[in-house]
Amino acid sequence: MNISTENTTDNPARGATHGDPVYGTAGGLIEDNPQRPSGMPVHKYQPFHEQFAVDLPDRTWPTRRIEQAPRWCAVDLRDGNQALIEPMDAERKLRMFDLLVRMGYKEIEVGFPSASQTDFDFVRKLIEENRIPDDVVIQVLTQSRAHLIERTYESIRGAKQAIVHLYNSTSVLQREVVFRTDQDGIVDIALDGAKLCRKLEETVPDTRVYYEYSPESYTGTELEFAVRICNEVLEVFEPTPERKVIINLPATVEMATPNVYADSIEWMCRHLNHRENVIVSLHPHNDRGTAVAAAELGYLAGADRIEGCLFGNGERTGNVDLVTLGMNLFAQGIDPQINFAVDGGIDSIKRTVEHCNQLRVPERTPYVGDLVFTAFSGSHQDAIKKGFEHMAGRAEAAGVGVDDLVWGVPYLPIDPRDVGRSYEAVIRVNSQSGKGGVAYLLKHDHGLDLPRRLQIEFSGAVQRVTDTEGHEVTGEDIWRIFADEYLPIDQAGVGAAGADLQPWGRLRLEHTRIRAAEGGPATLEIDVVDRGEKHTLTGTGTGPVDAFTDAISHVGVDVRVLDYTEHALAEGGDAAAAAYVECQVGDDVLWGVGIDPSITTASLKAIVSAVNRAERTPS
Amino acid sequence: MNISTENTTDNPARGATHGDPVYGTAGGLIEDNPQRPSGMPVHKYQPFHEQFAVDLPDRTWPTRRIEQAPRWCAVDLRDGNQALIEPMDAERKLRMFDLLVRMGYKEIEVGFPSASQTDFDFVRKLIEENRIPDDVVIQVLTQSRAHLIERTYESIRGAKQAIVHLYNSTSVLQREVVFRTDQDGIVDIALDGAKLCRKLEETVPDTRVYYEYSPESYTGTELEFAVRICNEVLEVFEPTPERKVIINLPATVEMATPNVYADSIEWMCRHLNHRENVIVSLHPHNDRGTAVAAAELGYLAGADRIEGCLFGNGERTGNVDLVTLGMNLFAQGIDPQINFAVDGGIDSIKRTVEHCNQLRVPERTPYVGDLVFTAFSGSHQDAIKKGFEHMAGRAEAAGVGVDDLVWGVPYLPIDPRDVGRSYEAVIRVNSQSGKGGVAYLLKHDHGLDLPRRLQIEFSGAVQRVTDTEGHEVTGEDIWRIFADEYLPIDQAGVGAAGADLQPWGRLRLEHTRIRAAEGGPATLEIDVVDRGEKHTLTGTGTGPVDAFTDAISHVGVDVRVLDYTEHALAEGGDAAAAAYVECQVGDDVLWGVGIDPSITTASLKAIVSAVNRAERTPS
Repeated sequence: MNISTENTTDNPARGATHGDPVYGTAGGLIEDNPQRPSGMPVHKYQPFHEQFAVDLPDRTWPTRRIEQAPRWCAVDLRDGNQALIEPMDAERKLRMFDLLVRMGYKEIEVGFPSASQTDFDFVRKLIEENRIPDDVVIQVLTQSRAHLIERTYESIRGAKQAIVHLYNSTSVLQREVVFRTDQDGIVDIALDGAKLCRKLEETVPDTRVYYEYSPESYTGTELEFAVRICNEVLEVFEPTPERKVIINLPATVEMATPNVYADSIEWMCRHLNHRENVIVSLHPHNDRGTAVAAAELGYLAGADRIEGCLFGNGERTGNVDLVTLGMNLFAQGIDPQINFAVDGGIDSIKRTVEHCNQLRVPERTPYVGDLVFTAFSGSHQDAIKKGFEHMAGRAEAAGVGVDDLVWGVPYLPIDPRDVGRSYEAVIRVNSQSGKGGVAYLLKHDHGLDLPRRLQIEFSGAVQRVTDTEGHEVTGEDIWRIFADEYLPIDQAGVGAAGADLQPWGRLRLEHTRIRAAEGGPATLEIDVVDRGEKHTLTGTGTGPVDAFTDAISHVGVDVRVLDYTEHALAEGGDAAAAAYVECQVGDDVLWGVGIDPSITTASLKAIVSAVNRAERTPS
Repeated sequence: MNISTENTTDNPARGATHGDPVYGTAGGLIEDNPQRPSGMPVHKYQPFHEQFAVDLPDRTWPTRRIEQAPRWCAVDLRDGNQALIEPMDAERKLRMFDLLVRMGYKEIEVGFPSASQTDFDFVRKLIEENRIPDDVVIQVLTQSRAHLIERTYESIRGAKQAIVHLYNSTSVLQREVVFRTDQDGIVDIALDGAKLCRKLEETVPDTRVYYEYSPESYTGTELEFAVRICNEVLEVFEPTPERKVIINLPATVEMATPNVYADSIEWMCRHLNHRENVIVSLHPHNDRGTAVAAAELGYLAGADRIEGCLFGNGERTGNVDLVTLGMNLFAQGIDPQINFAVDGGIDSIKRTVEHCNQLRVPERTPYVGDLVFTAFSGSHQDAIKKGFEHMAGRAEAAGVGVDDLVWGVPYLPIDPRDVGRSYEAVIRVNSQSGKGGVAYLLKHDHGLDLPRRLQIEFSGAVQRVTDTEGHEVTGEDIWRIFADEYLPIDQAGVGAAGADLQPWGRLRLEHTRIRAAEGGPATLEIDVVDRGEKHTLTGTGTGPVDAFTDAISHVGVDVRVLDYTEHALAEGGDAAAAAYVECQVGDDVLWGVGIDPSITTASLKAIVSAVNRAERTPS
């Protein structure tokens, strides 16, 4: 055992040296840990428990269970936004706000209006354009300084209701380094601010003002001082059953294992005055990679509310991820009270957030990453297949739908369809060479560099063939399947095999003519054959792709481009470009591929490819 | 309070309806949670505690503290590799293996040799080429099936030592859906395999064989059954003090909050036979985003060993991230026994892993993401600045170096220099417009689309100017600083301001001549001026960039290209391309920028830019 409940001074991990055993030789050394000192400067760091005491031997949270969603507060427009290299402009802010409202968030921190004119203007826009639903309350952050508080009240004038979120930093480190004052001085900062808030209520007579107070850098603050300052602020804010006050206990920097945060929350819940009229709120950051756990254990420990951001955007390692938290409840049969399937599914939510934050949501993000509903290993694929079959059999035997059963498929914690996704078994071929993938073969043999989601989609097409034909697929098979799926037959060059191929679909692009005015919109004229009939169509848009989707809307094709990449094909011979577009065609989301000497034409062909595939792919 | 310790049947979150209050109107409704049912199909899911009982009211782990690193096992080459769209080829596998060895991992799972010829060949290569250090043991996975076990023993023949990792699936779901057998049948599968392993030891007389057994899908298995099967397998493997046996308890799918996993581990540790000769191992996956917490709490609960992958690669949402776990220890003053500053720093480790996995490590990954040592907000930047000043002052007063002090800078959990990184205060300009960033201005005004790490690097140059000149910077200032930093003066077009600029540096590229044979290496001849002296240099390489670095090595320039992106500049006028390269020049890692009508020449100019900057930037 390498763990102790005592505070030993001779911790062997801190500077001790070992002998020089060799793993597994002679007497067999698996009994000894074969690891060696790293040489890293561990002397620069002090364990959390040597800095702060959190003493709660009679903790109750480990025996409790979550049975209901917490009150959520989304801080994407403030804490998330302030951590972006390129903060959101007004258009992006509005898209984020509207998304949060559609998902069901009722408390939304919309900015730090006294610190940023953009934030101030955005709050005014929401209020003046009457964009805040009656059941949603905006929250605005302010540091506890007089001129900032005054400006904050100016920003909320005319709102029906607002939460004024007052903070000042309370940690030992910030007291010493930044504020150079003692605990009393820090309490005075908080109380002066709180009193000014109460006074300024009279300047916003039409607005019902609620309060939130954060002892910022709470995790670096002695608990006794944290509870003292919160209780003193509560005396100013005067919580009542009709106007409860939010006390927010942020892990501004995550400093210890999440059970320690939970202990501190349970301790605070026991020591806060007016507890029945106080809403205890958590605001975990993810410096140690345990923000989700800290939120869940802190909620078990008695908190009522959680602040975070979609997909964990936020300072440094991010705020806690509200999507993971909500979906974790969903996977336990608890209504998150947030709709993660809004706008057609979680991928659509992701795309909006990626647009607003200009940051990609990583491939392995729980419930949403491109790779999280995939299976690569044969044994996983086999078990999943049997799981689906078993559910279908049970449903049939019981005379009910599959969705009436409790979900149970190995390796899939939830049914991907519940968030508008699908399960993909990703097929590998030619595993002997170590160049395992379909993607490798397309790249190596044909110079095509498929985006990851297209790789996954195409793998499904390969799987359908292998399931049907039942033999190991070759590189040639892969190309035939790819060309059949994404390219016009005459471009595939697959010769005699053409007889087996699927028809190319309703649209065929014949000619394009583009006019783009300097700085103005693009106009595109195209000749297309639609179900055998020739049309000349005109469209306008910000660019050729936009103009093209406008043009084909005139023959009733409803297509929206969601993602787009292109590359030049390898040099030598006839230089060409490949374009890949992810499109929404009607209700389907699928990829198209175009290859052409002109990059513009390649992109238009890719849209045609997606449209044609939508028509023949059963959705 | 929304949480109960009882199993209520009328959980209001599951299907209950509410009245129709409106947030904050009339009587003020902050006392009620304003959230509403989402409409998501929660009826399909059953809470974990209704499926499995983990009853441990006298748990001790919440009072314990971590004081020493666990035994680590890196499974990047097996569990990580099997979750890649493009599995590693032999070159990538070897790079990963060597990296893990250099970092200090002593137990490395190198493959599933009976399931993949590539894995088999790689294990043979390691053994036959004598690539395994004496203090490192390889581990090979096998399912408990006779022909797979036999093949596994073939793979390890000739190794000095190896851990044979035997598994079969034990969960309720897999028993019912996949194996269609009862508990006794599943135990027989395990025991038959374990006995065959013992028998096959005689086929590898020169190899010391150790054992690991995993009840796969442990988190979906009744604890009583999990401990039964483990104890029966232990009777076959016969653990002794000289040859302990590893019992690995994987969260194959993460199914509950991490405290529940910890409870289950403490329960298992109490009920496993031969506990003193058993190494209890954890293998958390990250389906709920709490794998790091599960590993930490499970380790507190009595486990000895943790299996995971660098940066959390692995099936679906990934295996637990070994880097975060190790660095979390480091930040508490505990030696992780792994060197996260090897190869010049954590960024170098990241680049190797990105090369092997062909997956990017996300921007907000703890301790390593591009954005985790940045500060964007003015108050954070101010506090960090004061923190650095305070440490310098304390060190001076005490007559010691800053590195002799305990680290204490607000918002920076560790000193970035300890992993070869640096802190960057990212400056925003022109915040009134909401187009806040330096990056926006360079893109909007000059068409330059800077990679994220270059944006962060350049922000430091802007900050140096703002710190010196003390006024708000304009878009024109930004361009002047950028051109001065990255471009030759004559290209910057900054006219009269040129007098203030830094000298461009040692190298100036005059002419290039490229010869590329069909499919062969590229040969490049260049005319350069080096410190005023003209040279004609020749280099060869896989491409022009490679050939160029070879050519300039002849005048003593040591440069390696780490990252590379390029784009065309906006259409109209003289079409041109911009290239951005991240280079290692000597010990420095820094970016260069090149602009030229030819994309090839732009990339070479970018390397010159990096080389010239390295010479004048104090490292």
